[in-house]
Amino acid sequence: MVERLVIIGGVAAGAKAAAKARRMKPDMDIVVYQDETEVSYSACGQPYVLSGVIENRDKIVIRRPHEFASDNIRVLTRHRVEAIDVTARQIRVADLSNNNECATAYDKLILATGARPVIPAVDGIELEGVLTLRSISDLDRFKSTLSSLKPKRASIIGAGYIGLELAETFHALNVKTTIIEKFDRILPKFDAEMAQQVSAHLSENGVELITGQGLARISGKNGRVAAVTTESGLNRDADLVVIAIGVRPNTDLAKDGGIALGKTGAIAVDEKMQTRTPAIYAAGDCCETIDRVTGKTTWLPLGDIANLQGRVAGENAAGGNASFPGVLGTAIFKTFDLNVACTGLSETAARQARYDAVAVNVNRSDRARYYPGGNNLVIKLVADRQGGRLLGAQVIGPGKADKMIDIAATALLGKLTCEDLENADLAYAPPFSPVLSPMITAAGALNSKVNNP
Amino acid sequence: MVERLVIIGGVAAGAKAAAKARRMKPDMDIVVYQDETEVSYSACGQPYVLSGVIENRDKIVIRRPHEFASDNIRVLTRHRVEAIDVTARQIRVADLSNNNECATAYDKLILATGARPVIPAVDGIELEGVLTLRSISDLDRFKSTLSSLKPKRASIIGAGYIGLELAETFHALNVKTTIIEKFDRILPKFDAEMAQQVSAHLSENGVELITGQGLARISGKNGRVAAVTTESGLNRDADLVVIAIGVRPNTDLAKDGGIALGKTGAIAVDEKMQTRTPAIYAAGDCCETIDRVTGKTTWLPLGDIANLQGRVAGENAAGGNASFPGVLGTAIFKTFDLNVACTGLSETAARQARYDAVAVNVNRSDRARYYPGGNNLVIKLVADRQGGRLLGAQVIGPGKADKMIDIAATALLGKLTCEDLENADLAYAPPFSPVLSPMITAAGALNSKVNNP
Repeated sequence: MVERLVIIGGVAAGAKAAAKARRMKPDMDIVVYQDETEVSYSACGQPYVLSGVIENRDKIVIRRPHEFASDNIRVLTRHRVEAIDVTARQIRVADLSNNNECATAYDKLILATGARPVIPAVDGIELEGVLTLRSISDLDRFKSTLSSLKPKRASIIGAGYIGLELAETFHALNVKTTIIEKFDRILPKFDAEMAQQVSAHLSENGVELITGQGLARISGKNGRVAAVTTESGLNRDADLVVIAIGVRPNTDLAKDGGIALGKTGAIAVDEKMQTRTPAIYAAGDCCETIDRVTGKTTWLPLGDIANLQGRVAGENAAGGNASFPGVLGTAIFKTFDLNVACTGLSETAARQARYDAVAVNVNRSDRARYYPGGNNLVIKLVADRQGGRLLGAQVIGPGKADKMIDIAATALLGKLTCEDLENADLAYAPPFSPVLSPMITAAGALNSKVNNP
Repeated sequence: MVERLVIIGGVAAGAKAAAKARRMKPDMDIVVYQDETEVSYSACGQPYVLSGVIENRDKIVIRRPHEFASDNIRVLTRHRVEAIDVTARQIRVADLSNNNECATAYDKLILATGARPVIPAVDGIELEGVLTLRSISDLDRFKSTLSSLKPKRASIIGAGYIGLELAETFHALNVKTTIIEKFDRILPKFDAEMAQQVSAHLSENGVELITGQGLARISGKNGRVAAVTTESGLNRDADLVVIAIGVRPNTDLAKDGGIALGKTGAIAVDEKMQTRTPAIYAAGDCCETIDRVTGKTTWLPLGDIANLQGRVAGENAAGGNASFPGVLGTAIFKTFDLNVACTGLSETAARQARYDAVAVNVNRSDRARYYPGGNNLVIKLVADRQGGRLLGAQVIGPGKADKMIDIAATALLGKLTCEDLENADLAYAPPFSPVLSPMITAAGALNSKVNNP
């Protein structure tokens, strides 16, 4: 009999896993269950659909069910998996169009159930105009709410990447914005002096940032949101409230099926993306992974990681032997004119991980100064004073932060020292770079601290 | 007594060495001799001064003698070093302003004598309108020739980086251009199918490319250049001829002084940038280095390498203990709308170096397709089939070739395999990258060849 691979969830990890499994095994029976109407879309593109940078919503849908069908992958949208029976190796699925339920068997199962926004239990959370932005259904609701409410003032609850991207979006839409963040400062993965640059930039662009205070309640008028109140009693009028305080892995199905979760609360997997239950894999935002710098278990719900993990899970579920070695914690986002990126450990995180950390901040142009069009970057590099191994980098500025952070991430993969990076033979010509890459300059400055503690 | 460091040549390696030695040793007596009127300029910026992208020539002069003086570094311009007496540890210097000669002692000596254009011994080479572009004196002559001759047709002899950059410059200046290249094809460091993209792009932009034929002679009229003739007898009218067939290390001083040259013909140095003569270092285009991929001696006369080596030579001449580990052969240039970059070995070079080389070419956008502003790149990756270690990369296209090649170069430094790179945690957000970096996609495609040869 033909082996059947069932994949629960088809956004990023699930879609990638299906495609990879198909390439590995042309005759496998592959079925993807998805509770939404779309699969294979870019959640990360959503703020740019709202701002109009991406002209329409359909553009972020990468691949439609019929396109999967042409690869002989069955994609069942509006089908919700209700339960997994790991002993019988079958799942129970509800067809949301008619509420019929049926059971289906699997030989291999991949959980790609993703994550969902954390919703605070505050008064007013159910009011019209209180939104999240995670799934494409959220996006559709968000877009129609913008059209119907025509908001003038928004409060964004949470200063994570989505919150900061949306601040730029709202600015483009002429919506005056307040961001309310429970922690003392934004961007906890960045060191304070780096994050401060982003805070200052938000202010310069007219975004109010309130930190150190969570959301206490949302007030409404006629069923619509009208204002928010912070824990210390600050009030802000708001005709739109976005809840962006983070996400939580969707693990109910796994937990109820007896599939082990790890200590992060996400599904535990090994480097083959295999759960602790035979024949079951997990990939993407629903599962945990390894931090390659510290070696510790971590959870990093990002779209590119979901794709990397989905590929490995798909390959292995189809009989392959791929490994996913873990993450560096690389991330990047743009808010107004700043590109903001990090990889590996901040200085703070390095000290918490018991490294004798040493760090430098340098400010450089990303091009030869005499060549037009260069932009500045502040680069922070962190290393282990003992031996100089690089531990992390943070890059903020209008310049090519993506290029710099990818150099740093690749250096972390190779376990390079700052001396290695200081001597790196990187590409130079005036249209592209200063004669020595800003990463080389930063590594050199850091290396002198390593040698002379 | 205060130690004296004498540096011969002050363009890139020499200027960097002086600055680094000063930072290392505040009380060292540091003297730089330079035969031109300027030191510390960017030779790589010159094509862009000619095209007007860089608005004036002074912009590419990074640091002037009086700025060095403020660091207590004496810079003697228009002083030519005539001889080195390694036994007496002194040099003989001619002051070009008055032809006076004097001897001066050194405790440490750094040779940063650079390289000079190869000039073919053909008839007509002395005609007005036959130019090179290497030193800033060349640039000044080039600029005044452009003004006085107002050329309509140029021939560029040699299709190296300078020749191809100048083709774009001439196009901007409305000068119809023919490139004459002795080898069968351009860009020998790239594989043929990659180089072909650049040839095609030159044609599309109206540049005539004649390959497989060297320059036979230059004809003139009234002392001015009028035409060129190739070895096989093709004639092209030309009111400007640029000789850009490559450079040769300036080693006469070293050789006459008994300082050993290596088998590349450049000055032999160890990883401390020390020559085989005590107390004498060399750095930049005049010396050879190690290819970090093959481990063999090579010569790579590029501005960024000169800076890296200058730093190491300066540090060590001032009592430090830095090392320069060698080069990957990373290079990048722009011609018209193509960014063209390479690092490590081409497939051809890998086979010549006896690797069981395997390679892929992939064509990808440098951004998520749904996000505006992305540009294409063709990426070629080369690996060792046995174990999958990356050996080299070539990237060509209107997209972010600089970013891609720097990722590849850093991967080479870390001796990563394609599997390592396939799983790399690189930075993703829609304004910066597709969900998986084109380098990850390419590495994945290559990895499947490594596993299934």
